[in-house]
Amino acid sequence: MARRGLLIILSSPSGAGKSTLAGRLRKWDDSLRFSVSATTRAPRDGEVDGKHYFFVSTEEFQSQVTDGEMLEHARVFENYYGSPKGPVQAAIDEGRDVLFDIDWQGAQQISNSALRDHVLSIFILPPSIPELHRRLVSRAQDDPETIERRMQKSWDEISHWDGYDYVMVNDDLDLTEERLKTIISAERLRASQQPDLMNHVRDLQTQFEDR
Amino acid sequence: MARRGLLIILSSPSGAGKSTLAGRLRKWDDSLRFSVSATTRAPRDGEVDGKHYFFVSTEEFQSQVTDGEMLEHARVFENYYGSPKGPVQAAIDEGRDVLFDIDWQGAQQISNSALRDHVLSIFILPPSIPELHRRLVSRAQDDPETIERRMQKSWDEISHWDGYDYVMVNDDLDLTEERLKTIISAERLRASQQPDLMNHVRDLQTQFEDR
Repeated sequence: MARRGLLIILSSPSGAGKSTLAGRLRKWDDSLRFSVSATTRAPRDGEVDGKHYFFVSTEEFQSQVTDGEMLEHARVFENYYGSPKGPVQAAIDEGRDVLFDIDWQGAQQISNSALRDHVLSIFILPPSIPELHRRLVSRAQDDPETIERRMQKSWDEISHWDGYDYVMVNDDLDLTEERLKTIISAERLRASQQPDLMNHVRDLQTQFEDR
Repeated sequence: MARRGLLIILSSPSGAGKSTLAGRLRKWDDSLRFSVSATTRAPRDGEVDGKHYFFVSTEEFQSQVTDGEMLEHARVFENYYGSPKGPVQAAIDEGRDVLFDIDWQGAQQISNSALRDHVLSIFILPPSIPELHRRLVSRAQDDPETIERRMQKSWDEISHWDGYDYVMVNDDLDLTEERLKTIISAERLRASQQPDLMNHVRDLQTQFEDR
């Protein structure tokens, strides 16, 4: 096994460029996997089971949480959302990184999970609040009330920027992309991501003893 | 202040290429500082005070340790060696990284010091023991006894490879150099190295409240 995969958490308020950056990372390295969340809410038009979400019943969801099969989960109003552990464990065991598009609460849960040694957490900040507002307004024909609710949610997310390994201000999409690539390239080299090191040191020991 | 400097610890057995790599890093970024150790041993021919070592008396050394002015220190036979804190603190406050060429005991002490949030520790492994032996033999006209003592010391160092942030096998000098640069470039982007982030978030908060 050449290396172990990383759990790459990318958090940000909506409108800070996260989806664009995630898409570019996927283009850069197509072995990158996106973690697909499980949810108990009903599928919306065009949403595909297993691609956009794993759509499960409340009973299934609760039994998966109870069995320790969710890396993180949260209840939002009447629905549950969570990140199933199985596909993530399989991917990192194969040396593939998994990208998580989750909020600060999910990030905290994964950063404290049994897989914490393999977590790389990154928070993307917007250059300014007026710019964030502009992006939220421009990308959808939402009513002012919806925009305001999103702004409040964005601020709640921003206020939890602390505690991430890396935090960057996305005022230049290309520069932020380059930085993300540098960080991921470096973190792949961490000792905790290189299970073969142990074998190499064992070989050195044998060679030293056999001199 | 643009960023805070890193304490970059580079450990390896002698003969693994550490000095060559340190020189290349210095050429890559001439703002990089080397930590100059203090010692109570007498200067050898050609050694310059403040460049190769800070040569101090045993009394001075002990009082610096007592006053918490040594980041790490050790006694080797009759002499003390240590890394003075003052120049390191000054450099990282100015946003310059400091490179430490120290062994695993010093690395552990610095990794547990008050500056631990700014430490990046890297261990360089040799490709093989015969290769390490070849390098030790080829670079000096030492007698077999001295070579053997160095081999023993090298193995003692190798056996403490675990516990470093990054560990790499130096079987290709150019590749190892590239990896070191990637790692340093990434670690400079860590949230803990970016004191200005706090100001940016404060600005965002003001903008959010003033909408």
